Amino acid sequence: MTHHDHTTLMEAPETGTQPGGRVEEILSCYPSDSAGTKANLRRLFMQGRLAGTGRLVILPVDQGFEHGPHRSFAVNPPAYDPEYHPRFALAAGMSGYAAPLGFIEAIAGNYSGHLPLILKLNNHDLLYDEGDPLPAVTGSVEAAMRLGCVAIGYTIYPGSAHCNEMYEKLQFLAEEAKSAGLAVVVWSYPRGSGIPDSKGETALDVVAYAAQLACQMGAHVVKVKLPSEFLFQDKAKKIYEELEIPRSTTADRVRHILQAAFDGKRIVIFSGGSKTSEDAFYDDIRGIRDGGGYGSIIGRNTFQRPWDESQTFIGTVIDIYRGEA
Amino acid sequence: MTHHDHTTLMEAPETGTQPGGRVEEILSCYPSDSAGTKANLRRLFMQGRLAGTGRLVILPVDQGFEHGPHRSFAVNPPAYDPEYHPRFALAAGMSGYAAPLGFIEAIAGNYSGHLPLILKLNNHDLLYDEGDPLPAVTGSVEAAMRLGCVAIGYTIYPGSAHCNEMYEKLQFLAEEAKSAGLAVVVWSYPRGSGIPDSKGETALDVVAYAAQLACQMGAHVVKVKLPSEFLFQDKAKKIYEELEIPRSTTADRVRHILQAAFDGKRIVIFSGGSKTSEDAFYDDIRGIRDGGGYGSIIGRNTFQRPWDESQTFIGTVIDIYRGEA
Amino acid sequence: MTHHDHTTLMEAPETGTQPGGRVEEILSCYPSDSAGTKANLRRLFMQGRLAGTGRLVILPVDQGFEHGPHRSFAVNPPAYDPEYHPRFALAAGMSGYAAPLGFIEAIAGNYSGHLPLILKLNNHDLLYDEGDPLPAVTGSVEAAMRLGCVAIGYTIYPGSAHCNEMYEKLQFLAEEAKSAGLAVVVWSYPRGSGIPDSKGETALDVVAYAAQLACQMGAHVVKVKLPSEFLFQDKAKKIYEELEIPRSTTADRVRHILQAAFDGKRIVIFSGGSKTSEDAFYDDIRGIRDGGGYGSIIGRNTFQRPWDESQTFIGTVIDIYRGEA
Amino acid sequence: MTHHDHTTLMEAPETGTQPGGRVEEILSCYPSDSAGTKANLRRLFMQGRLAGTGRLVILPVDQGFEHGPHRSFAVNPPAYDPEYHPRFALAAGMSGYAAPLGFIEAIAGNYSGHLPLILKLNNHDLLYDEGDPLPAVTGSVEAAMRLGCVAIGYTIYPGSAHCNEMYEKLQFLAEEAKSAGLAVVVWSYPRGSGIPDSKGETALDVVAYAAQLACQMGAHVVKVKLPSEFLFQDKAKKIYEELEIPRSTTADRVRHILQAAFDGKRIVIFSGGSKTSEDAFYDDIRGIRDGGGYGSIIGRNTFQRPWDESQTFIGTVIDIYRGEA
Amino acid sequence: MTHHDHTTLMEAPETGTQPGGRVEEILSCYPSDSAGTKANLRRLFMQGRLAGTGRLVILPVDQGFEHGPHRSFAVNPPAYDPEYHPRFALAAGMSGYAAPLGFIEAIAGNYSGHLPLILKLNNHDLLYDEGDPLPAVTGSVEAAMRLGCVAIGYTIYPGSAHCNEMYEKLQFLAEEAKSAGLAVVVWSYPRGSGIPDSKGETALDVVAYAAQLACQMGAHVVKVKLPSEFLFQDKAKKIYEELEIPRSTTADRVRHILQAAFDGKRIVIFSGGSKTSEDAFYDDIRGIRDGGGYGSIIGRNTFQRPWDESQTFIGTVIDIYRGEA
Repeated sequence: MTHHDHTTLMEAPETGTQPGGRVEEILSCYPSDSAGTKANLRRLFMQGRLAGTGRLVILPVDQGFEHGPHRSFAVNPPAYDPEYHPRFALAAGMSGYAAPLGFIEAIAGNYSGHLPLILKLNNHDLLYDEGDPLPAVTGSVEAAMRLGCVAIGYTIYPGSAHCNEMYEKLQFLAEEAKSAGLAVVVWSYPRGSGIPDSKGETALDVVAYAAQLACQMGAHVVKVKLPSEFLFQDKAKKIYEELEIPRSTTADRVRHILQAAFDGKRIVIFSGGSKTSEDAFYDDIRGIRDGGGYGSIIGRNTFQRPWDESQTFIGTVIDIYRGEA
Repeated sequence: MTHHDHTTLMEAPETGTQPGGRVEEILSCYPSDSAGTKANLRRLFMQGRLAGTGRLVILPVDQGFEHGPHRSFAVNPPAYDPEYHPRFALAAGMSGYAAPLGFIEAIAGNYSGHLPLILKLNNHDLLYDEGDPLPAVTGSVEAAMRLGCVAIGYTIYPGSAHCNEMYEKLQFLAEEAKSAGLAVVVWSYPRGSGIPDSKGETALDVVAYAAQLACQMGAHVVKVKLPSEFLFQDKAKKIYEELEIPRSTTADRVRHILQAAFDGKRIVIFSGGSKTSEDAFYDDIRGIRDGGGYGSIIGRNTFQRPWDESQTFIGTVIDIYRGEA
Repeated sequence: MTHHDHTTLMEAPETGTQPGGRVEEILSCYPSDSAGTKANLRRLFMQGRLAGTGRLVILPVDQGFEHGPHRSFAVNPPAYDPEYHPRFALAAGMSGYAAPLGFIEAIAGNYSGHLPLILKLNNHDLLYDEGDPLPAVTGSVEAAMRLGCVAIGYTIYPGSAHCNEMYEKLQFLAEEAKSAGLAVVVWSYPRGSGIPDSKGETALDVVAYAAQLACQMGAHVVKVKLPSEFLFQDKAKKIYEELEIPRSTTADRVRHILQAAFDGKRIVIFSGGSKTSEDAFYDDIRGIRDGGGYGSIIGRNTFQRPWDESQTFIGTVIDIYRGEA
Repeated sequence: MTHHDHTTLMEAPETGTQPGGRVEEILSCYPSDSAGTKANLRRLFMQGRLAGTGRLVILPVDQGFEHGPHRSFAVNPPAYDPEYHPRFALAAGMSGYAAPLGFIEAIAGNYSGHLPLILKLNNHDLLYDEGDPLPAVTGSVEAAMRLGCVAIGYTIYPGSAHCNEMYEKLQFLAEEAKSAGLAVVVWSYPRGSGIPDSKGETALDVVAYAAQLACQMGAHVVKVKLPSEFLFQDKAKKIYEELEIPRSTTADRVRHILQAAFDGKRIVIFSGGSKTSEDAFYDDIRGIRDGGGYGSIIGRNTFQRPWDESQTFIGTVIDIYRGEA
Repeated sequence: MTHHDHTTLMEAPETGTQPGGRVEEILSCYPSDSAGTKANLRRLFMQGRLAGTGRLVILPVDQGFEHGPHRSFAVNPPAYDPEYHPRFALAAGMSGYAAPLGFIEAIAGNYSGHLPLILKLNNHDLLYDEGDPLPAVTGSVEAAMRLGCVAIGYTIYPGSAHCNEMYEKLQFLAEEAKSAGLAVVVWSYPRGSGIPDSKGETALDVVAYAAQLACQMGAHVVKVKLPSEFLFQDKAKKIYEELEIPRSTTADRVRHILQAAFDGKRIVIFSGGSKTSEDAFYDDIRGIRDGGGYGSIIGRNTFQRPWDESQTFIGTVIDIYRGEA
C-alpha cells in the first residue's frame, strides 16, 4: 500500500497537458474550497498563452454599461458587436472574459467552454448620479450556471456611504456561487465620500486596504488599481514612514499589495498602468510581474484600438508575464 | 434499575480523558441548548493548555478588516499570512481563533478540527465613516458549517443610532446558528452617539449594561472591554453610590460585570488591560481570574509582536488562568 | 349518546381537577383561534393560586434589557440570577413569566412546563435615545416553540413616529405565532412625539385607545398601564364630558378600558398602581378586580424587594383577585 | 457570583407548586431534548392525581378505528361521544388522553390545555386484512401543533413483514415532532409473520426487544404489553436460563423490561393485566409499580364499563401508583 | 511575499499541541471534501490514546437493536445503561462511539464534544426475518447535526437482493451529510442470497469487493470484517492464484483489502479477530497494523465483559496500534 505522494502526483502533469506545479501551488492556498471551485480556477489558469504559468490576463468589457456605448465603442465600431470581445481574447491567448449579463448571453452559447467566462453580477450606469456609488445587481448565480461561466464578478466601492449594502449582497452571492462550484472575482475600487480626494482612490494604503477587504470577504480573485506612491490615511502614513515600507517602484508597491492580500495567498490582478507611453505601460507590467502580482485586467486598451494594434499590444503584455519580454 | 446519577457520570471522566466537573458545571447553565451547541462549547473549553479549567483565551484577528492591513500587520510582517494566526494559537495552547470569512477560509481546510474556529459574521472598515457605527454582515451560518466552525461571532454597538439593525440581524443569525448546533459569541462594544464621551465606552455601568444586553439576546459567550471605575449614566451612578457597589479593583469590577451577565451564568471574556507595563497587564488578568471572569480575548498583543515574545506573553497569561502565576 | 352540552361538559370538571366555567366563558370570546392557542391560554389561566378564577398575575422581567442590570437588580442582588424569577413566580403561585430571549433560554430547560413562559420578542435599551421609541425584534416564534413557551410578547408604542414599523412587525409575528398554536400578548404603551405630555401616556382616553389598538391587531392578551382620570385628546374629552362617562374611581376607569377592549371580550391586564403606600396599591388592585380587569402584570414590585417581603406582597395581590382580601 | 446550584433550584419548588425532584430526575435522562419537548413531558407528569409522582396513567381510545365502533362502544353507548373520554380522564385524574385525529379534533378546542393530548399518527382498521399488519399514517405533526397536543403517538409492529416501512415513517415524524417541541410516544407491539405463535407477542424476551427497539428509535415514552414468563426466541431463552434472569413475578418481568429500556432511563408504560379478577389486575399494577414501571395505559377497562364503575376502578389503579393501595 | 509552504505549516504543530503529519497525510487523500468534513475526521483522529497516530479504535453499540437487549447486555448488566458505553470509550481512550438514535440521544447532551459520536442511520432487527437483509433508516442527518455528531454511519449488505435500495438511500444521506460538513462511515457487510455460503461473507475476494464498493459510494471511513484466506468467487480465485497474490497472513490480507480501498487512500477499519484466545486476537491486531489497516471497531469484546477486564483488553489493543505491544 502506498499513501498519497505529492511528488508522484505532480510528475505526470509535467509530461502531459496538466499544468505544472505553479497552478497547484496557488490552489493549495484555497484549502477550504470545493473541487468545483478549484476546477474553475484551474480553467482560468490553463487558458491561452499563459496556461500553467500562474499568471492571468483578463479582458473585461463592462464599459458599455458603466460609461455608455458611444464612449466605449464609437472609436472602434466593430467593438459594438458582442462577439468581437471573446474572439479578441481567444485570438490573443488571454485567460478569460468578464462582462455583464447581456454581453455574456450574446456569446456564451458559442464561446462558453472555449474561453473562461466571468459574469459580472453588479453594474452601475451614469444616467443617474447618486453621489456615493451603489451598483445594481444585474445578474445571478443561476444565470452564471446556465451560461457555463467559471466565476461571478462583483464590484465593491469601499469608502462609499453605501458600502454595507454592497458588502452584504456580495456575502450572499459569493456563498451561493461557492456552493455551486463557481469562483468569485471581486473588483475592489475605493471611491465615494469617504475618500473625497480622487488621489486617495489609488493611494498605496487605500489600495492595500481595499485588497484586504475583498480577501476578507472571501474573494478568490481580487482586482485592484495599480497603486501610486501617495499615502491617504494619516494613521497609515505614519506607519509606512516609521517602518520605511518600500514604495518607490511599481514592484515595491505591488509587493506590498500582495502582502495585504493574505501574504500573496490570494490571486490579485491589476488594472491601469502608465498612460505616457506603451513602453512605460510595459514597465508597469514588468513591475506587477516582479512584485509577485498575478496579472492584469485590461479593457479599454484592447477594444478601443484597432484589432491588430491591440493584439500586438496584448501579445507584448503576455510575453512579459511569460518572462519573454 | 438505576437512574441517571450525575455524580457517577462525572467520576469516570476524572480517571480518563474527559474534563473534570468545571466544564460541565458551566454547561449546566445552558439548559435549553441542543447537544450540538453544547458539543461546540465543550470543544472550546477542552482546547489547548486551558482544557478543562473552565477558562478561555481566544485569539481574534479581525483588525485587517477593521483597521486595515498596514496598521494591523506591518509591524510584524509574517502576520500578513493567514496561517500565522492559527499556528500561533496552537503553539501557545490558546482556546480558539476568531476571524472574518476570508481569513477563516484561507486556513479552515488545514486547521478546522485542530483548533476551534469562530467565524465573525459582521465587520466594519474605516474607509467610510458613517458616524454611528454599523458593521456589514460579511459571512453566514452556512459558511460556518461548511468550514467546520464551532461558533459564529457577531459585534453589536449599543449606543449606536443603528443598534436596532444590528440587534435584529443578530436575532436572525443566532437562531439559525443554534438550529445548526453552533454556539454564538457576541462582541458587545458600547459606541456611538448615545455615548458621546469616549470614557463612557468603558464605564463600569455601561459595560455591565452591554454585557446584559448580549446575554438577553441569547449569546452563549460575551466579549466586553475591561471596564474602568468611571460611571457614565447619571441614574446608574446614583445607584452604585447609594448601594456602595465595590468597584475600586479590577476584580471588583469583573465581579460586577459577571453579575450583570446572569449572575455568572453566561461566559464572559474580556479584552483590553493595562498598557503601562506587562506586569500591570498580568495584574489585570489576575483581576479577571479572581473576579470570576471566564478569560480573555487577546489580539494585537499577539500578532503585533515577534512570535517568541508574544508566545512568552500569552504563556504567562495562560499560566495565570491556570493558577500557576 | 348525548351531544356536546356545555353544562354537562362543565359538570364533571367541577367534581375533578378541571377548572370551573369561568375560564371557558373567557375562551368562548376567542371562537376563531386554534385549539393550540386556546390550550396555551388555558395553561395561563390554570396556573398557580389563581387557577380557574379567570384572573392572571404575570411576572415580567425585561428591565435588565430596558433599563440596565444595575437599575434593575442591584437593590436585590439575588435577582441578577435568571433562576430567581421563575422560582419566585412558582413560589408565589403567579400565572406566568415573561422575559426576553436570554432570560428565557437560561431557564426554559428546567422550568418550561412547570410555569407558563412568554417570550418577549421585542425590546429596547437606553444606551441610544432615538427620540420616538422603536424597539428591536430580539426573538422569534421559532425560538418560542423550541423553548416550550405558551405565548409571544410584543410591545407597541402608539404615538411614536415609528408606530407603523412596530405594527407591521407585530402583524407578521402574531400571524406566525397563531399558526404555531401560540398566544399573543401585546404591551400597548402610548409614548412618543404624538403624546408630548407625559401625563397623556396614562390618560384615560389614550389608554382606552391603546387597548383598542392592541385588540384590533389581534392580541389575545393586552397589557396597559392603569389609567388616570386625566383626558388628553380634546375631541375625546368633549365626548367623555358630554356623556358623563364615569371615571372618578379606579374601578370606573378599568371598566371603561375593558369596554374599549371589545366590551370585556379581550383579556386586559394592568401594570402600575399607587406608589403612596401598599394599602393604596391594594386598593388599586381591588379597583381592577371590581372594574372587571383580568389581572395585573407586576415586575419591579417583585424583584426589587427582598424575597419574603415581595412574596407577602404578591400573596396579598392574589388574595384580592381571589376575593379573599 | 454564584453558579448554577442544582440543589437550590429544587428547593424552592418543594415549598411551592412546582413538582418535587422525581419528575426532574426522570427528565435528566433526556439531556438532548429541547426545552419545548421537556415542557410537554412535564405537562404529562404534572397532570391529575399522579402529578409529581413520576407515574402516568394514560387513556387511549383508538379502538373505534382499530376494531370498529360496535366492538368498542356498543356495550357502553355514551362512549360513542368523543367528549366522554376526555371528561372521563379529567374526572378520574388520569395523566393524558391519546386518540386518532378525529376524536382529538372533536374535543381539542374545549379540552386542550386542560388535559394533555396525544395525537395518534398511525392507525389500522380491520376491513382489509393485509396479513402482516401495516398501519396507515392518519395524522401529522402540523395537526398536533394546531390542536395543542403534548405528543405524537405512533405504533410499530416489530415482527411484521412491513416493519421497515413503519420504522422509516416513525423516523421522519419523530424528528419533525422533536423540532416542534413535541414528545414522541411509541406503542411497540410485536406482531406479524415473524412471531407466528401468538404467545410470542407477550413473551418476555420479545417484549424486552420491542421496548429496546422503540427506545433506540428515539421514543420518549414507550408503551408495551405486560409480558408473560414465556420465552420465544431460542437464542434468548438460552441466555435467560444460563444467567438465571428472574422472571417469575410481574415485578421481576417489569424490572427486566425497564432494563431493556435503557436501564430505566426511558419512560415505559404497560397495557394489559390479569383478566381473571379486579384484584388480580390490581396485583399486576402493584407489580408494575414495584418493578419500576412508569405506569399504565388503560383503554377498554375504562370506556367499556359504566362511568362510575370504571371511575372507581381507575381510582384504585391510581391509588396503587400513589402507594396508597 | 512568501507562498504557502507545507513544510513550514507542519513544523509548528510538532512543537505545539497540533498532531504531527500523519493525520494530515491521510486527509490529503480527501481533496474534494469540505473543511467541515475534514474537521470532523480530524476530531476522530485526535481523540483518546491514539490521537495523532492515524489509527482508530471505535466502539460500536448497535447490538441492542440488531440482536436484542438480552443477547447484548444480560451477560454484563451495567451495559444496559446508555451511559456505560461513552464512559467506557472515554476511560479506555478510544477514538469514537457509534450507535443508533436512541442510544446517542440518551447521552449526546452530556458527552457530545467530549467524545466523537457517529449516528448509525440504518438498523435491522431480528423479530422479522426477511431472508435477504434490508435495514430500516432510523435516523437522519438533521438528527446528527442537532446531536453534535462527527459522522453518520450506514450499513450496506452487498449480496442482498435489496442492495440497490440500501445503496440508493446511502447516496442520498451521504450527499446530505457532506453538505452539512459531516463524515460518512460505511459498514460494508456482504450477506444475503448472493453469498449463500456463510464462509463467503469473510472471503478475501468478497471483503475486498465490499471495501471497494463502499469507497466507490463515497464513504470516508469503511468498516469491513477481517477477511479469511478463503476465496469465494471462481473468477476471482483464478486471478488470485495466477498472480500469486499473498494471502497467507493477516497482514497480507489486510494489505490486499487496503489496495482495494483506493490503494490505501480510504480509511478502512476492521471488525472481528480470532476467538481462540486473547493472544491470537492481539496477533490479528498486529496483522491489521502491519498490513496498513487504520484500526478496529470493537463492540461485543468491550461491553460483554466486566469493565476492568475489557478496559485492560482494549488497552492492549491500543498499545499494539501505538506500536508499544
